[in-house]
Amino acid sequence: MSATSVGSTAGVNRQFKLAARPSGLPKESDFSLVDAKTPAPGEGQVLVKTVYLSVDPYMRGRITGVKTYADPVNIGDVMAGSAVGQVVESRSNELAPGDFVLGYWGWQEYAAVKAAGLPKLDPKLAPVSTALGVLGMPGMTAYFGFLDICQPKPGETVVVSGAAGAVGSLVGQIAKIKGCHVVGIAGADSKIGWLTNELGCDSAFNYKTTTDYSATLKELCPKGIDCYFDNVGGAITDAVFPLMNVFGRMSICGQISQYNLEKIEPGPRILTQVLVKQLKVEGFIITRFQNRWGEGIKQMAQWLREGKLKHREEVVEGFENTVKAFIGMLQGENTGKMLVKA
Amino acid sequence: MSATSVGSTAGVNRQFKLAARPSGLPKESDFSLVDAKTPAPGEGQVLVKTVYLSVDPYMRGRITGVKTYADPVNIGDVMAGSAVGQVVESRSNELAPGDFVLGYWGWQEYAAVKAAGLPKLDPKLAPVSTALGVLGMPGMTAYFGFLDICQPKPGETVVVSGAAGAVGSLVGQIAKIKGCHVVGIAGADSKIGWLTNELGCDSAFNYKTTTDYSATLKELCPKGIDCYFDNVGGAITDAVFPLMNVFGRMSICGQISQYNLEKIEPGPRILTQVLVKQLKVEGFIITRFQNRWGEGIKQMAQWLREGKLKHREEVVEGFENTVKAFIGMLQGENTGKMLVKA
Repeated sequence: MSATSVGSTAGVNRQFKLAARPSGLPKESDFSLVDAKTPAPGEGQVLVKTVYLSVDPYMRGRITGVKTYADPVNIGDVMAGSAVGQVVESRSNELAPGDFVLGYWGWQEYAAVKAAGLPKLDPKLAPVSTALGVLGMPGMTAYFGFLDICQPKPGETVVVSGAAGAVGSLVGQIAKIKGCHVVGIAGADSKIGWLTNELGCDSAFNYKTTTDYSATLKELCPKGIDCYFDNVGGAITDAVFPLMNVFGRMSICGQISQYNLEKIEPGPRILTQVLVKQLKVEGFIITRFQNRWGEGIKQMAQWLREGKLKHREEVVEGFENTVKAFIGMLQGENTGKMLVKA
Repeated sequence: MSATSVGSTAGVNRQFKLAARPSGLPKESDFSLVDAKTPAPGEGQVLVKTVYLSVDPYMRGRITGVKTYADPVNIGDVMAGSAVGQVVESRSNELAPGDFVLGYWGWQEYAAVKAAGLPKLDPKLAPVSTALGVLGMPGMTAYFGFLDICQPKPGETVVVSGAAGAVGSLVGQIAKIKGCHVVGIAGADSKIGWLTNELGCDSAFNYKTTTDYSATLKELCPKGIDCYFDNVGGAITDAVFPLMNVFGRMSICGQISQYNLEKIEPGPRILTQVLVKQLKVEGFIITRFQNRWGEGIKQMAQWLREGKLKHREEVVEGFENTVKAFIGMLQGENTGKMLVKA
């Protein structure tokens, strides 16, 4: 053990590797938990011990074997993903043992990573877990994906699907900060209560216990819908289209209802609505805003300090439960941001 | 007859009135040809005799009885539409008998219309019929709908559906002027020949004789598709989505394949493509660009003079054939702009 290390590396590095391409909803057997050797950091590298792992909807796309906006994770690869770690051994002047960092070393307990450019987190400013949530990718996804693409104006009606998730729960609050009328859609009564009682949504409904989405949306959006932030797609989004107002904007952030389908699902054609309402429907991947990350972090942190923004983390304990957490998140078991404490 | 009138008004004003809401493709019996009395112009008005009538795809939407972006034409109303007319009697200092004007008095041989604000056409600058085509609404639809919404860059691949129609045939040429690789889709071999031999499209195919749109598009667009200008929707557009490049733009101008359907047709869901490719899909109605009309007319007229832009008119003779022309246009019988010479 190096003189600059803290804690015990124990020599064993547990990893989750992709074992099979999932068909439909991923199963635990699609991943294998293996014991690797804890790597030795090279010159300029640090050895990090994973503290928090992120499980996110986009990961479902990475394991299909199809190149989308990023290369797929291959069978036998350590599953990709963001993580917060603590430096246990350093061969770089930039980081010291004990430092917290944000990185993309995936689902493993230890990693040897290049120190240069690795974002260092200050636990005095915010809990380090927020770097995977409200002050990280999901937070920036909500901030830029909603504000830049939807361009909301005060008084407009905003509908958010997946409204109790890591991203959606922030979008609804940002929409309220901007003076909009906000309607959230989520899949549990407890989530609906959280949205309306704690996060300030004007109304919300549980799509699992609502039969007529269209009638419900019409009632909750008497002036029509100006902005739609979509995390789910499918039947919920079908019901939104006919209620969109002229010059409405749709930010397509996720389509979680479609990710586990083996074949593209048919649905009602939407382009006539796009035409006659002059809608703008735009998809985005958060990387496109990466050069403006600082602006987003600064604003979100300020809203947090001012108490205008709340966030919630659902922490699953134990590295070995990462796959369970991932599958649970895909089924909507989380309220707010789903994390694994390794 | 007034001292300032020219020609004979004959006292009879033939009109086409909406007789029934069409179910599917409109039939001739959905309109009735009636003899009305030629109106007398009031103070500040002119009596115009229709010279050219326009038949356009958007008119199908006006007779459904559903308010979209404009009020529907009601049963018993004179069918709405743009026309070019010649003043036969004037009770205004702004216009004199013999003047050509552009207006929106619909499918009738005569109309008494307010002179103030009525665009006067100079037959020495361009044939007056062009005010209904390349230098009118279809021309501006092509110009703004393509350039503003697709924002094409040199070297990009542009696909145009309805490529031999009034709008599409101009879009393809504007795309060539902007240095793009252009692929047109149309419904007759004669149209394909016109697109590739005369209008400069890099390639084009006949969707009526092509079985695999996807394979054909893949072959003709080896670098993928950056911009799609859609006039038709349906299966053709379904095939375009998976071939769109990252940050692709789609201008939704028309959905003619859908206009005659009684129920919204199901099709493959497209929003996952919108998401992973970060597409921008935007619908538009030309009225949104009306304050920039002058800019568009000026540029299109210049391209016409420079020989960079060609246009074609398909003129049906005889007011009484207006409904036939309209139905024929909806079935794609026209190459270029369909007009009726009254």
